Amino acid sequence: MDPKSKKILAAYKKLGGRIETRGKVQLPRMEDFSLWYTPGVGTVSSYLAKHPKDARSVSIKKNSVAVVSDGSAVLGLGNIGPYGALPVMEGKSLIFKNLAHIDAWPIVLDVHEPEEIIKVVKAIAPAFGGINLEDIAGPKCFEIERRLIEELDIPVMHDDQHGTAIVVLAAVLNAAKVVKKNAKKMRIAILGAGAAGSGTARLLRTYGIRDIVLADSKGIISRKRTDLSGEKLALSKITNPRNVSGEASEMIKNADVLIGLSGGGKITEAEVKSMAPRSIVFAMANPIPEIMPDVAKKAGAAVIGTGRSDFPNQVNNSLVFPGVFRGALDRGVRKITDDMKLNAARALASLIAHPSPTKILPTVLDKRVVPTIAKAIR
Amino acid sequence: MDPKSKKILAAYKKLGGRIETRGKVQLPRMEDFSLWYTPGVGTVSSYLAKHPKDARSVSIKKNSVAVVSDGSAVLGLGNIGPYGALPVMEGKSLIFKNLAHIDAWPIVLDVHEPEEIIKVVKAIAPAFGGINLEDIAGPKCFEIERRLIEELDIPVMHDDQHGTAIVVLAAVLNAAKVVKKNAKKMRIAILGAGAAGSGTARLLRTYGIRDIVLADSKGIISRKRTDLSGEKLALSKITNPRNVSGEASEMIKNADVLIGLSGGGKITEAEVKSMAPRSIVFAMANPIPEIMPDVAKKAGAAVIGTGRSDFPNQVNNSLVFPGVFRGALDRGVRKITDDMKLNAARALASLIAHPSPTKILPTVLDKRVVPTIAKAIR
Repeated sequence: MDPKSKKILAAYKKLGGRIETRGKVQLPRMEDFSLWYTPGVGTVSSYLAKHPKDARSVSIKKNSVAVVSDGSAVLGLGNIGPYGALPVMEGKSLIFKNLAHIDAWPIVLDVHEPEEIIKVVKAIAPAFGGINLEDIAGPKCFEIERRLIEELDIPVMHDDQHGTAIVVLAAVLNAAKVVKKNAKKMRIAILGAGAAGSGTARLLRTYGIRDIVLADSKGIISRKRTDLSGEKLALSKITNPRNVSGEASEMIKNADVLIGLSGGGKITEAEVKSMAPRSIVFAMANPIPEIMPDVAKKAGAAVIGTGRSDFPNQVNNSLVFPGVFRGALDRGVRKITDDMKLNAARALASLIAHPSPTKILPTVLDKRVVPTIAKAIR
Repeated sequence: MDPKSKKILAAYKKLGGRIETRGKVQLPRMEDFSLWYTPGVGTVSSYLAKHPKDARSVSIKKNSVAVVSDGSAVLGLGNIGPYGALPVMEGKSLIFKNLAHIDAWPIVLDVHEPEEIIKVVKAIAPAFGGINLEDIAGPKCFEIERRLIEELDIPVMHDDQHGTAIVVLAAVLNAAKVVKKNAKKMRIAILGAGAAGSGTARLLRTYGIRDIVLADSKGIISRKRTDLSGEKLALSKITNPRNVSGEASEMIKNADVLIGLSGGGKITEAEVKSMAPRSIVFAMANPIPEIMPDVAKKAGAAVIGTGRSDFPNQVNNSLVFPGVFRGALDRGVRKITDDMKLNAARALASLIAHPSPTKILPTVLDKRVVPTIAKAIR
């Protein structure tokens, strides 16, 4: 392990968990136990047994979100299981609290079949006001999210799909301003056709962008492919209007925007050089971007973003998920609709009045971000 | 709803959840995001994927307990489901933090078959350092606990059984001192043969008390009963040495100790009058004791306890579970053994140097309780 990694691990070890619980009441006297535990709690239990919906006003369900992963697609690290996922879900829980005052709790699952994941999440749902699905691999993530949205009465969002889609759309809108292009007429190439690629392609399309092409590890998602099924087959029908095919490099040629959502793939300097003039490159794989910003810049990209907080233009869903759930919890929203997502993206983009090559989005430190996005979720 | 209940409900509503999460680090600068979220978190995820056991030192698993119920036997209120259970599990989570600095989170389950409950708890176990099962009805609670203890590598305790057993044994030991009887030679009658009755009978027996008789709603658990199976059949073989049978009143006659663990049953004044001289009565049903303390006193009981914090001698497992899990987490204890339970009961009893009729146990406000019990868990 390199010295930097050692130092990070030591910091985590010293802390022994980045979040904790805290009582909102203290129990200094016996009367406090009588009110906040037994016998007082019996009154509330009897009441909720008859009025379960009121759990949203008298219990933690009012403000709680489960951050759920089975660890099958963690950052760019792949299928590393529940223990590998735990630090990320705990980190998201920390961010939920820090940015949006939401009481989120990491739930990492030691089951991996879609039906099992659905069953477990449904089983634990009563104590939560929302479910943030995270780092669950495609294609199972699509079915899991769809079913949970249908079968639960609380908001469920797979952040890799929709948080990413919202922040990318916001970034695309402002980057288009920087390069003075009409966003709807830009050619978009998306490297990666998993959860993030799919969610992003669908939201950009819903926004009104027509020329979107995706590629997975086997090449461009086109109607010529015979190996596609499920979500990728569906994507082949609604994207790629010119029906280009072949290697990913083919779709990158003359593209206005290249979005790396590959979870660990690579973008070469030559590929960026082959793009249209005043190109936009978002290399969002974490922790290692598909192409480093300095290389992309050298290759001629006019606007460059990554998923990381230590480079300019962080295009990361941490700009989105706190506000989405803040809004959903505050307004009792059960389903995050496409309209809400479009509104959230536009609202996020609007926070930067004059986008520049190194400032297309606000940072997570910008206190306006969460309330602005929350307001869009209605 | 009566005015007192209305007032309680209003207090809970005003708070909207008695616990919350809290970041142990703040995120004032971008560098903080880089360390505590991405890219820093990637280092820890990669590490834990290879060294899952170290989740106990670098993540919330170090100090977290899931408080799990399906709501099938909540307080004395019966099978009122997950929403009915939520206020109790949240209250226990509050007490875990307040008394033992443990980060507990309520998990209420919308599944009820034993195999499903086992599956869900195993599925969510990776992020937790311990599992406190709570308010799960007999007989399924026995199988669920047994299997989870076997199949998980973290401590699992069904508090209704063992927390109750430990606090009752401590109370019995000190009450015996008050009435100047030899604890091991006392006749014990236990009203209720569910989780708490079973756990208590077994621990009292392990301690060395021989004459223990239980009754359920159909009468005394004896070898004459032909309707028994599972845990009750097992209890019929190891308790009731005189093989008495019939109604519960029969076992109460001449008993030295009567322990109400019925979850909602009744003990009459006449029954207490029929007990041996200098009798001991613990009426532990919550929120309504099997017999009110003033009535038991009038009927001649020398030492009286309830499960409630608003009467003297609270014999409640909140004296026990925080310390048990504190000790287990601190020492990496995987199984709570009988020896640990006996030691915990003796240690708890020892905190009252000179027991009196209205002071046989310390209260939950006594700061010595948690560290004393934690020390016994080794």
